[in-house]
Amino acid sequence: MIARLAVIGVGLIGGSLARALREAGAVGEVVGCGRSLPNLERARELGVIDRFSQDPAEAVVGADMVFLAVPMRAMRGVLETIAPALAPGAVVTDGGSVKGSVVADAGAVFGAPPPFLVPGHPIAGTERSGVEAAFAELYRDRRVILTPVEQTAPEAVDRVEAMWRACGAEVTRMDVSHHDEVLAATSHLPHMLAFGLVDTLARMRENDEIFRYAAGGFRDFTRIASSSPEMWRDICLANREALSAMLGRFSVELADLARLIREEDGDELLALFARAREARDRYIDGVR
Amino acid sequence: MIARLAVIGVGLIGGSLARALREAGAVGEVVGCGRSLPNLERARELGVIDRFSQDPAEAVVGADMVFLAVPMRAMRGVLETIAPALAPGAVVTDGGSVKGSVVADAGAVFGAPPPFLVPGHPIAGTERSGVEAAFAELYRDRRVILTPVEQTAPEAVDRVEAMWRACGAEVTRMDVSHHDEVLAATSHLPHMLAFGLVDTLARMRENDEIFRYAAGGFRDFTRIASSSPEMWRDICLANREALSAMLGRFSVELADLARLIREEDGDELLALFARAREARDRYIDGVR
Ligand SMILES: NC(=O)c1ccc[n+]([C@@H]2O[C@H](COP(=O)([O-])OP(=O)(O)OC[C@H]3O[C@@H](n4cnc5c(N)ncnc54)[C@H](OP(=O)(O)O)[C@@H]3O)[C@@H](O)[C@H]2O)c1
Ligand SMILES: NC(=O)c1ccc[n+]([C@@H]2O[C@H](COP(=O)([O-])OP(=O)(O)OC[C@H]3O[C@@H](n4cnc5c(N)ncnc54)[C@H](OP(=O)(O)O)[C@@H]3O)[C@@H](O)[C@H]2O)c1
Repeated sequence: MIARLAVIGVGLIGGSLARALREAGAVGEVVGCGRSLPNLERARELGVIDRFSQDPAEAVVGADMVFLAVPMRAMRGVLETIAPALAPGAVVTDGGSVKGSVVADAGAVFGAPPPFLVPGHPIAGTERSGVEAAFAELYRDRRVILTPVEQTAPEAVDRVEAMWRACGAEVTRMDVSHHDEVLAATSHLPHMLAFGLVDTLARMRENDEIFRYAAGGFRDFTRIASSSPEMWRDICLANREALSAMLGRFSVELADLARLIREEDGDELLALFARAREARDRYIDGVR
Repeated sequence: MIARLAVIGVGLIGGSLARALREAGAVGEVVGCGRSLPNLERARELGVIDRFSQDPAEAVVGADMVFLAVPMRAMRGVLETIAPALAPGAVVTDGGSVKGSVVADAGAVFGAPPPFLVPGHPIAGTERSGVEAAFAELYRDRRVILTPVEQTAPEAVDRVEAMWRACGAEVTRMDVSHHDEVLAATSHLPHMLAFGLVDTLARMRENDEIFRYAAGGFRDFTRIASSSPEMWRDICLANREALSAMLGRFSVELADLARLIREEDGDELLALFARAREARDRYIDGVR
């Protein structure tokens, strides 16, 4: 049970955590924080938060749990601001999509990652953003990855794990850099391909006509290209190394594929497509 | 009204046409044709066809409309086989995903594309195949592109257009090579990216773990990688030139994107993602 939760960044991720904990009866008071007044007022109207402050330091006063759900580029500044205001015993965790950069930010602010900080990442989301997009079921039956480091206090990890469990999520732990590699592969690379594909078509002369003949498969395939451009710019910059490595791997695959087509190598094309379908069907069978 | 329809290849595309025309009361008798007996018997059991033959020449006897819904690589052989058996006045059309190759096949078989052949392509489908996957609503409110050539008889085009309209589809006409370019962009390239992405991940050492952390966006994004490998091998070979050109374009885009990430060019990344989102949202607004 959390007595007072401070949510810094009351958008899709922060707002959904607040909603889920409230619905589970797992939180007393929720204090929100953001830069723009209208979003915070709307969050209060919707019952997502009880009260708010536009100053992160003020928002965390007396909170036993602090959740950072701001864009990646804002993490360091928020950590800096809240550092002197945290209550003794408070646990701080985040929902950022990249974990190496958050650990680096904490190192820069505190000298070393502090024991009360538990880097985390819910593997859940939609292409919408803002508090209006938040809903209590976002994390139900989804995975949350926590990436504690050497300095992290085990009790802090346990409290964050209990919080996510209360939202219906399944919590796993992972090494920071492994997290960033896995997410580069399963999330960041696919987003680059979707953005890149739509942009390629949009840049073609006859682009209006082209989109007119796109069918249902295209709609699903490019759904993730409707995600927030700012959020994705931040993720690219925060996970530059792992994402660059994955883009390199994929470029090799694509060059191979182009060569097989050019050389009309039907057998190898068939083998590649069959391998991919088999892997996807296995993954889908495994998906809950 | 079609008196006797011959469907060569009673799978998703051929079976759905038969079902849709029956439901619309727009067809008298439906004769199916395929290689394997079980699929044809199943098609008759399901009421998709009235009777069948495993010989395309026998199947088209007395048919006023012939629909070719076989894999791209089988088109030429089927045209060759049915040529001497077609009834006078019969119209032949197809549902193949590539049109240049069908026109070339017809040229090879008949010397020149015959007036009674109307190349066509319904922009509809799922990742499933076989007659069990067929359903009457597949073409409802979807587009069908017809690509008549110089030699095609206008009355033949009109009859095919009326057939698709009876299925609830919207019919447009397009130049053969333009069709193949547009489809390379909106369908064939996305399939290559989905197959290529899943194969890239499947080839990584820790691939089981990687797929475990893939979320909902990944599932949608890779749905099309569950499509038939044989069908896609055929499409790649049949649309080699236009698809190679699109793969080239996309590779340039991807190299640019990789460079922007490497050089940490946040402004240009933001511009690219925003352009893509704007284009997709415009397309989605336009989608019916
Ligand atoms: N969306 C997803 O699918 C997803 C999934 C997993 C993880 N994440 C991660 O979760 C975090 C939040 O993403 P989201 O989708 O929830 O975005 P969002 O809906 O845009 O919410 C972000 C919130 O942060 C506030 N904010 C921005 N800068 C701030 C600052 N300097 N100080 C205080 N508040 C600030 C924004 O409000 P104001 O503009 O009014 O300040 C906004 O309400 C990101 O780090 C993202 O990488 C996202
Ligand atoms: N699926 C889509 O999303 C989609 C969309 C638009 C267009 N298309 C095009 O539509 C065509 C059919 O695709 P589909 O999805 O309907 O495939 P499908 O479900 O696999 O059906 C193809 C049918 O053709 C039969 N067949 C294969 N070779 C044959 C031959 N030599 N002679 C006679 N029958 C033969 C197969 O049965 P047997 O194996 O028993 O012979 C099978 O029933 C392809 O050209 C494809 O490019 C597909």
